[in-house]
Order: sequence, then C-alpha cells, then structure tokens
Amino acid sequence: MSYSIRKDVLNIEKYVAGKPISEVKRELGLDEVIKLASNENPLGCSPKAKEVIMNMINDSALYPDSSSYELKRAIAKKLNVSPEQIFCGAGSDSLIKVLCNTLLESGDETIMGQVTFPRYETSTKLMGAKAIKIPMKNNALDLEAMVDAITDKTKIIWFCNPNNPTGNIFKKADFDKILNKIPDSVIIVMDEAYVEYVVDPDFPDSLELLKNHPNMIILRTFSKAYGLASLRCGYGVASEDLVQYVNRVINPFDVNLFAQNAAVVAIEDDEFLKKVYDTNNVEKEFLYSEFKNLGLEYIETNTNFIMVNLNRDDKPIFDALLKKGIIIRPGFLLDMPQWLRISIGTREQNEKFVKALKEIL
Amino acid sequence: MSYSIRKDVLNIEKYVAGKPISEVKRELGLDEVIKLASNENPLGCSPKAKEVIMNMINDSALYPDSSSYELKRAIAKKLNVSPEQIFCGAGSDSLIKVLCNTLLESGDETIMGQVTFPRYETSTKLMGAKAIKIPMKNNALDLEAMVDAITDKTKIIWFCNPNNPTGNIFKKADFDKILNKIPDSVIIVMDEAYVEYVVDPDFPDSLELLKNHPNMIILRTFSKAYGLASLRCGYGVASEDLVQYVNRVINPFDVNLFAQNAAVVAIEDDEFLKKVYDTNNVEKEFLYSEFKNLGLEYIETNTNFIMVNLNRDDKPIFDALLKKGIIIRPGFLLDMPQWLRISIGTREQNEKFVKALKEIL
Repeated sequence: MSYSIRKDVLNIEKYVAGKPISEVKRELGLDEVIKLASNENPLGCSPKAKEVIMNMINDSALYPDSSSYELKRAIAKKLNVSPEQIFCGAGSDSLIKVLCNTLLESGDETIMGQVTFPRYETSTKLMGAKAIKIPMKNNALDLEAMVDAITDKTKIIWFCNPNNPTGNIFKKADFDKILNKIPDSVIIVMDEAYVEYVVDPDFPDSLELLKNHPNMIILRTFSKAYGLASLRCGYGVASEDLVQYVNRVINPFDVNLFAQNAAVVAIEDDEFLKKVYDTNNVEKEFLYSEFKNLGLEYIETNTNFIMVNLNRDDKPIFDALLKKGIIIRPGFLLDMPQWLRISIGTREQNEKFVKALKEIL
Repeated sequence: MSYSIRKDVLNIEKYVAGKPISEVKRELGLDEVIKLASNENPLGCSPKAKEVIMNMINDSALYPDSSSYELKRAIAKKLNVSPEQIFCGAGSDSLIKVLCNTLLESGDETIMGQVTFPRYETSTKLMGAKAIKIPMKNNALDLEAMVDAITDKTKIIWFCNPNNPTGNIFKKADFDKILNKIPDSVIIVMDEAYVEYVVDPDFPDSLELLKNHPNMIILRTFSKAYGLASLRCGYGVASEDLVQYVNRVINPFDVNLFAQNAAVVAIEDDEFLKKVYDTNNVEKEFLYSEFKNLGLEYIETNTNFIMVNLNRDDKPIFDALLKKGIIIRPGFLLDMPQWLRISIGTREQNEKFVKALKEIL
C-alpha cells in the first residue's frame, strides 16, 4: 500500500468478541445454542422499555436527539445529580474510547489491572499512550500497587468495580486508604458496569466520593442489568467541567433513538431491576453449589458472571462446550488461563451448562 | 481544573444538530411541529425492516455481532463486492471519525469543500490535523482547486457527492479529469450518503472506480433513503487491505443489533426504495415550482433536500419558521448565510412549510 496507516493503529489488534449465537449455529451446524459468554441479561429488558420500542416503530427515520436531553434528565433524577454532570454514549466501550480521546496525548500512561476490561488497554494504545498493567493480588485488583505505579505521565487510572472478568469488588475501606494518594491531575475512572448486581454492603459509594473528587468519572451501562445490550447505551457521571469536554468528543448521534427512549423508561423500572437482582442471586447460588459438587474453585461474584477454575487448559474445555452448543468465555482470552467465565443464565441454561461441563470433565 | 484535556479537544466546538421536534415543542410550547431540517425520510423505513424490529423485541439483552457478518454479506451481495471490502459503523459520522482516527497523525492535512458535511473538519481537527477548506465554485465543489491543494501533508481528500448541504453533484467526466492527479498516498473518500436519490445519469460510478483505486473509500448510509437514521448504521467500501485497518479502530459494537438486523432486510427492499425515490422526485418538483412562484433561486438537487436562496438574512426567517412550528436548517449554520436548507417532506409537510414561508416573506 502507498497510503500510510497511523502508527498506533498498526500496533493494536482487532477485538475478539464472544461469538454470537448465529455464528456458532452456522459454523457447527447446531440448532440450539446457549450463550453464557457476554454477561447478557437472561430476563431481557423492562417490559416498559419493550413497549416504548414497539411504539416508536414509525419513527425509524428520525435522528436521535444529539443532546440526549430526556435521557440525561432521567439519569440525573435517579442519581440525584445535575443533568450537566451526565454524558451518554453507545455503551461503556464507546465511552472508554471517548475518554482516552479526550484526555490522552502520545506518550501518556494509564494504569489498570492485569486482568480487567480489555478496552482500557486498546483505547489507551489507540491514542499512542502506554497501558500500565498491574499484576492482580489474589485474583483482585491490587489497589496499593496500582496507585504506587502513578508517575508524572499517568493521566487515567481505571478501577473496574466489580472487576470484569474476575467478578469481585474492592471495598470502601480499602479504597478510602488509597484514594487520597491519587493526585488531582489523574482522572479516576470508576467503571461500574455491574453495579446493579452488587450484593456486598461495603461497596464504595462512588457518587458520594465524586462530590469531593472533581477528577473522578463514574461509568455505568444499560447493557447488563437493564438488558439493553443490543441497543448500546451507557453513561458517565462527572463534574460539569469535565463533562463539557467529554461531550465535544462523543459523536453527536452516538446513542441511537431507540436506545435513548428505551433507557429513559428502563432506568425508572425498579420492579424489573429487583427481579433481575433476585433471580441473579438465586442462580448464582445454584452455580456455586454445582461448582462445589464438582470440586471447582470459583471467585465469589458481585456481578452476573462467575469465574471458575478448571485447573487445566481451558481451551479444550471451551471447544468441547462449543460443540455441545454452549458458548462461554474462555480464560485464555482473558489473561486467566485455566479459568472459564460463565454468565449467569436462567435455571434451564445453567442446568444445561452444568450438565455439559460434567460430561466433559 | 488540575487534570489536562488533550489540546486538540480544546480547539474544537460541540456540534450543533438540528433541534429535535421534542425540544422545539418544549421550548416554544407548540403542539404540532414539522421538522424539515435533518434530511430524514418522511416515508419512514421499509415495512420489512419494521417487521424485523418488532420480531426482535425479546432479544434486547443480546450484544450485536461484532463482525456484522450478515450485514456485510447483504451489502456485498447488493454491491457485487466481497464482504471483506465492507466495514460498518454507527452512521457515516461515526465512520468519518474512524477514518480520521485510522489515518491522521498530528500535523497532517485533509482537503474538503468550504461548504460541505461538517464532520470532515471536526474529525480532522480532533486528530490534531489541519482541515484545508477550498472555496466553492458556483455553489459546488471546485474539484480542480481541491486537487491543486494537495501537498505532501495531505492524507485524505473528501468528496461529498451529492454534496451536503448544496445538494448538487459533480459528474463523471469532470471527476475523471482530476482523479488521476491524486497521488496513491492520498485517501479519496467518496461520501455518497444520498446516492439513492441521484437522478443525474452522469453521476460517477464509484464502485467501478474503486477497482483501479485502492486508495478510494466509498461511504454510504442507511440514514437517508433507507429511513433508519434513528438506529445509526452506515458502511464503507474499500480495498480489503484498507478495510482490515479500519476495522481495528471501529468500536466492536458500533452497529447495534436492531440496526444490523433492520439494515439486512432494508437493503434488499427495492420496492420501498423505488417508492422513496419516486415520491422525492414528485415533491422536489412541487417545491421547485413553489420557489419559482416566490421568485427564489434554488440549487437543483440530487438529494432529498433543497438549498434555497432568501437573498436576505436567514436567521430571522429561521426563527420565524420555528415559531410557526417548522424546523429547517438555516444557512448561517452551514457557512451559506442567506440560504435555507429544506428537507423534502410529504406533500402535507411541504405545503405547510411553503404556506409559512409565504406568510413570513
């Protein structure tokens, strides 16, 4: 080729997502496929959101509201912050990229756990910045080590809490110990994609912390507990000052109109959210007990997925499950070889997965 | 603030979109509002696409296919290219940003018309590159002058054809004269968002040109004639080599699942597309004749919008129309003061607009 590709692009690889059901059916010639790989909500979304989607079918030709006015107001009301503190985008992954695009110059650094959401690293690298990956401690983020890694080049520190893919959290008391060691010049990202599933009462209250930390950004999403992953909608909460810069970088129509309208009602449907939370807890216990029966170690989770230790090469197990029509997320793709990440499904899905796993092991 | 925002972000401004209907209703206390500002399709989308959307309502929790497998195949089949030559994103504006992110280093230049789609400029600046804006010639892109502006720093040349917001095209014979003056090192973007509306038989066949120009990228969208602006879906066609780099930069889930599935059937519904094309032509003639009656100059269009010359300050006319519940795109926001850009609506909408305009003038 005679044209030139930007050098940072040459240095990154394409993301490998969990295979969609259609692809597995196609490749393996299977009729029935269960996907427990992408932490999708097996209960779908709020029935009220479905109604909204059905009712806007004749509005397909309209552009989204580039300011996400109604959505920002609904989120702000729910969280008791101002609408000017909210920014919206096409899922957390879009917003992570936007944050890097807003904040990172070539040569900067961002700090993250060794085993965490992979988009921090790719979006950092895409800006020509360096991803500093800190080894995990007991399969959890090592907060002390992360903060100790801060240098003059550090622009962002990524705290995924609960952490994906390990599913565990860091607690308020532990976070308090390190929070004030982070200089004001470093943006603290609290990625709380799974916050609605958290059961631990000692989970840090990031919205409270935000009041005294104008360098903090909280990221949340409608893709998990709200069951709207198909439509792509996430949001951030930060100081009004920071938000106005972020908004310059977000594509004006990043959040599509169906997502905007569905999210506005989804965030107010507490009844659906409670059902999601309760069901997840029941099914989590079911999987815990099955893993115990199988003698498999697992990480106690505050999310809708569980990391389980196979104590052997995970790739063949992943392949064997795939052949039985069950898609999970193998550890070798998550920098945790020998483990599997299992999204918590319906009882029927979980039983089929356990049955298949037993047959394979 | 103590954190630092990237300098290129400090230098750009937030995009001002056409006001959504809900906002105008809210601000002006109006019950009925007509929007002829964003070149939305007044006929909506294919009924087959609507059916697909209704049928996937229970799949809201599923992630999109990160490879847009089915959609790429459908587009490739329609255009008679390989699926590996297609990339998909959340509308042309997302893809324009992706192209800049793929190709531009700080200090590079991209060339565009003075009056053209504004995202070329903002996305260029966001990468720290310089937007070289070439004055229009008779309200059209000045192809010769654009090519003459190429320097060693030029990485992209943006040809919006038909050009938004002027609505006119450049013809095959004129493009042929300059095409071979463009070095292989410069990426030629043919932004054909409105291609489905083109009536002029001398419109360049970019898909044919692409075969001999591996440095060419064609951009098209489902937001205009296909009537799916709400869902955000656009695509690009280029050499397989170039596409694999572009795909590294596109967010894996940039195209949401509703958009993917709706677009797959929309692109095959030739009957709907013909209806859109025919209706647009009839209504275009209606507006032409009304403008003639009013003694207003207009630019003959190959799109679903018309630029009309008021020969006076456009801002007060824009405001007066707004008070009557009619949203159009005023020239002062398009670098064409004294003009209005009118999206071609239904007969009822067009009549109401003409009536209001007559009252105001």
